[in-house]
Amino acid sequence: MDDRIEKQLAFSLEIDKVKNIFRQTHLSAHGRNENDAEHSWHMAVMAYLLKEYANEEIDIAKVMLMCLIHDIVEIDAGDTYAYDAESLKTQKAREDVAKERIFSILPEEQAREFIEIFDEFEAYETPESKFAHVMDNIQPLILNDSNNGGDWREHNVTVEQIYGRQSKTKLGSDRLFEITDEIIKKNIKKGNLKES
Amino acid sequence: MDDRIEKQLAFSLEIDKVKNIFRQTHLSAHGRNENDAEHSWHMAVMAYLLKEYANEEIDIAKVMLMCLIHDIVEIDAGDTYAYDAESLKTQKAREDVAKERIFSILPEEQAREFIEIFDEFEAYETPESKFAHVMDNIQPLILNDSNNGGDWREHNVTVEQIYGRQSKTKLGSDRLFEITDEIIKKNIKKGNLKES
Repeated sequence: MDDRIEKQLAFSLEIDKVKNIFRQTHLSAHGRNENDAEHSWHMAVMAYLLKEYANEEIDIAKVMLMCLIHDIVEIDAGDTYAYDAESLKTQKAREDVAKERIFSILPEEQAREFIEIFDEFEAYETPESKFAHVMDNIQPLILNDSNNGGDWREHNVTVEQIYGRQSKTKLGSDRLFEITDEIIKKNIKKGNLKES
Repeated sequence: MDDRIEKQLAFSLEIDKVKNIFRQTHLSAHGRNENDAEHSWHMAVMAYLLKEYANEEIDIAKVMLMCLIHDIVEIDAGDTYAYDAESLKTQKAREDVAKERIFSILPEEQAREFIEIFDEFEAYETPESKFAHVMDNIQPLILNDSNNGGDWREHNVTVEQIYGRQSKTKLGSDRLFEITDEIIKKNIKKGNLKES
């Protein structure tokens, strides 16, 4: 086995650990907590399925890849809940260290490529990044909505907090923001989100 | 919400169930059984990572999509273990019924598109299908190898059986078959695979 392929397989094995990083979101039918690999898989399929709603032209292969790898850093950095203000403050620093260690298992030019894609996702500037973020927002939204807002109720999420996060969906897709808004309003009416 | 987007979101929610379909393969570090969503995620990342080893030119976006959706039918059909001869006989019939029900949740032309991609994967004829199958073979191989062949030992898998399955890797990638062969030989030496 040559050095290059050895590194590629070592990385392939390392990322198996993403399956043990659990999120606050629960699976549909009031299931267990979801892990990062499942969340990333779901986002990538939904990105392909819903690509017609992107505001701008997108390279769908790049969006799918972004969805697939955006949470790999959480192997070291752990999951940061979208409504945990304290953890959000240290998230970038934790993820930057993780990103260097984990992607550096790869051959150098592939490490650079993966870090670039991860950084592009985080920067929220390109059409692909914005649309991948739509998926990162809408995927847990539909699960949580299917569970009668259980995750929001458990964490006392307020209307203000959810609009703070979900309104960024507009940057990637006006149409999917309309849908998001519809789902949020339904859950406010049901009392699943606290009025601030 | 219009009819089209309602169908797309209903399908998005339906496929959440893939996360509850468990395989015979165990996660690295002697972890729990892996589920289909995790397996599909892992295959798609590895496909991108290892695309340079494909025998023929491939459309990597199509390969990734194949990897991501190839096990969705198992929501209804269940997982069929690669070395379970009895279940393999009925697999196609079970999966054909499942495929019709599940993909038909989508708007008609998207249902057709997803069924075509699934059928193309199953037919094992195009460069994309052959390379996606390489991932379907090598992903559990590296997990199992990392666990000292635990899954093979548990199911008394023989050398003949594993070569029967893994030799098809050659169709998609000569180089990754060499690696596969190296890993198999190491496990034969360790006594993890039974001589037939």
